[in-house]
Formats: sequence, C-alpha cells, structure tokens
Amino acid sequence: MDATSRGGGADGGPVALTGLAAYLELAAFGLLAGRSVDAPDLVTRQALASAAGRVLGRQERLLAVAATRGVDATAAMTPFDGVLADFDARTEPDSWSEGLLKGVVGHGVAQDLCRELTRGLPADEAAELRRAVDDGWPEEADGPATVVLAQAAEQDPVLASRLALWGRRVVGEALGLVPALLAAHPVLAGLAAAARRADAAETGETVGEPVGDEAAEVRSWLISRLTAEHTRRMDRMGLAA
Amino acid sequence: MDATSRGGGADGGPVALTGLAAYLELAAFGLLAGRSVDAPDLVTRQALASAAGRVLGRQERLLAVAATRGVDATAAMTPFDGVLADFDARTEPDSWSEGLLKGVVGHGVAQDLCRELTRGLPADEAAELRRAVDDGWPEEADGPATVVLAQAAEQDPVLASRLALWGRRVVGEALGLVPALLAAHPVLAGLAAAARRADAAETGETVGEPVGDEAAEVRSWLISRLTAEHTRRMDRMGLAA
Repeated sequence: MDATSRGGGADGGPVALTGLAAYLELAAFGLLAGRSVDAPDLVTRQALASAAGRVLGRQERLLAVAATRGVDATAAMTPFDGVLADFDARTEPDSWSEGLLKGVVGHGVAQDLCRELTRGLPADEAAELRRAVDDGWPEEADGPATVVLAQAAEQDPVLASRLALWGRRVVGEALGLVPALLAAHPVLAGLAAAARRADAAETGETVGEPVGDEAAEVRSWLISRLTAEHTRRMDRMGLAA
Repeated sequence: MDATSRGGGADGGPVALTGLAAYLELAAFGLLAGRSVDAPDLVTRQALASAAGRVLGRQERLLAVAATRGVDATAAMTPFDGVLADFDARTEPDSWSEGLLKGVVGHGVAQDLCRELTRGLPADEAAELRRAVDDGWPEEADGPATVVLAQAAEQDPVLASRLALWGRRVVGEALGLVPALLAAHPVLAGLAAAARRADAAETGETVGEPVGDEAAEVRSWLISRLTAEHTRRMDRMGLAA
C-alpha cells in the first residue's frame, strides 16, 4: 500500500507527514502507557495514563485528517512501520525513569520534527495538519511526565546526572534517525527542503551556496532546530542537555 | 486517606464504588495498552491502543463523578490500590493472546461486578454513577480486543482450545477476588446485599432463608451473575467458557 502516492495533494507530502506523525504518536502512547503500568505509585500511574490518553487523542485527530483525504489509518502509517526499531534497540532503558525520559525525549523530537516539516507544506495544505501537529505543543501531553522527571531529578542529584547522560544518548539516537528517514522518504526530504526555505524567508536569512549538497545543508539546519528544542525541553526538567 | 468515609452519601457506598470502578478501569487500560505495544501488526496495535484510550475515557468520567462528590482521583482509588496483585501473580500469561484474553476477561468481570453493585445504590445516588459504569457496556471498549481474539480462535482450533482453558483459569482467579474484596470493604458488601434484594424484587423471586449466613448467599448470587456474563462473553469470542 503506497499511501504517499494518493489522496495527498500534488506530491503526497501531507499524507506522508500525517502518517509519520500518527505513527510517532502511537509509539509515544506506548512508551507513556508502559511507564504508567509500572509506575512507582498510584498518583504517577494515573498521571501517565492520562498523558498517554492525551497523546492517543492527538494521534486519532491526525488519523481523522488522513481520513478526510481518503486514506485509512493503517495505510497512512504503514510506510513508517518499524522506523523506530533501531532506535528502540539502541535505547533499552535500565530503569523506570530512564524509560520515562526516553518517552519524553523521543516524543519531543518526533513532535518537533513533524512541526518543522509542516512548514514545508503549501499554505493551503498546511493549516489543518499544522493544527493537529501543533495541538498542545510543547507541553500539554507530556506535561505530567516532565513534572515527574523534574521532581525526581530535583530530589536526587545522582539520578539527575544519570538522566542527563541518558537524555544525551536518547536524543543522539533520535536525531540519528532523521537523515535515514529523509533518505528513505523523498517526499519528506522535499518537505524539509521547503521548510528550510520558508524558515530562511521568515528570518530574512540569506541561505548561501551550501558547502556540500543542498540535502546536507537542509539536514544540518533541521538537526540544529531539533537540538535547540531538545535543550529547552531538558532545561524545563532541570536536566543538563 | 479513608475515601470511603467522606463525601459519599450516607454510608460512602457511591464513593467506594466509584473508586473501585476507576481503579479497575485503570488496570484494564494497562492490560490493553500493553498488548497494543507488543501487538503482532500495525492494525492490531492501533485497534488496541484505541480500545485502551476508550477504557481510559470511561475511567476519567468515573473520576469526574468522584470529583463532583469532592473526592480526588487518588483518594477514591487508594483503598483499592494493589487489590489485583494476587490476581496478576496467578495469571501470568504465556503468550500475547493469553495476555489479551486476560485483559478482556478480567475487565469484563470487573465491569460486571461494578454494574451489579450499582443496583444496590439508593435510586437518587445511582443514576450518574450507573451511567458512567454502564457506558458502552458490554462491548464498546473491549470490542476490538474481542474481535482480534475471535478471529485468532476461528483460524486456529488448537489456539482456541488453549484460550478456552486459559479463560477458565483467568475467570476463576478473578471471581476468587470477589469474596476477599467484599470482606475487606464492608461498604461494598452492603451494596452487594442491597443489589441482591433489588434483583429479587425485580424478578419477583422470593429469597428464602439462606442456607448459610446472608453474606454467603449474596456472594453466591453475585458469583452466579458474573459467571453468566462471562459465559456470554466467551461465546461472543467463539471460546468455550
């Protein structure tokens, strides 16, 4: 099923991006729900269940956007099924808090990536999808998880520095997925390039001749955007980025 | 925190029942979400995530009912925290489908128990809570899980008979919790006795002198109600009860 080739505007960008965003939200749901199940106390268990529920709500709104384009849920997500397998294998947490931070960092990068890519959509295609992707950004859904982690880090400096290290490892692996994802899905690489141009136009920046190829320049720009948001996210939890 | 002793009408019954129902829904959320995470394919993963989300939605409506009585979420559920520990220890699944069936059977018994107990509430207390407990009963939330299990059983008679055996084990352990739960929470035992009287009044049955004590007669009645619903549930999945 090639969901990127139908029902998605001129080049399938909106459908591919909707499918990617929905798949990544489904993964985030799993990470948060899993840490609800083995949470250390009932308050945390409830808070993370509710957070997982809100993430799923976002995901279902994204799938509803796909449905308005005549694409069913599974068809939209199928091209991305398994895209996190390497990431998961390389970020096997050693503790409950590492598992939770993996969820927050991974979901954060995923949301930021999708937000950046929406900037590459033609304006008439972008509004609905951007609303679904931006919904509650950056805090709403992960809010309870970041509060739990911030409190744990504040009470235990040793844990805080272990989590800071762990956060670096997780974000490194997450960012490492981005080039592979763009290479495997040219339609997303096209959105990234368009987003890069839109960003330059907004900020009045002149994008000079790239040192390497244009794709490499776009990747560097995207990674730097995602890194900056990651730093802010770690700051909000009181963890060194 | 003794949530059963405040804000809950004359004897705390509505608050205790709300807390119990919310706690059991939270447990069901965890079982369904967990089987979404390790689902064999994307369609099933999505279906079980959505099912878990709907279970959580029910749970949050129950907590909202508790909130209208001035009881916070954790306070309402705290008296029941850990009530499933023995059940979980005795029903460690050996496979993904056993885990899913555990969720469906366990959640089914939990919902049926809460529905029966609402019949013991005074009419003026019962309406709102009964609406929250009955919401979508019996199929809505677990629907996708029962469809998955019914299809698996239909395609594989060996699996079907293994699941039938497993379902008997799970329901046995679930029903085994009921007497302990009523003994530990006299307010719930009071609701069960009132529900028994309401049932007799509705069916025109004359409840004779019980053979043993009244509590034992009430327990037998309750277990027989839960067993009957379990049989219907297994039938819907094409599994021998």
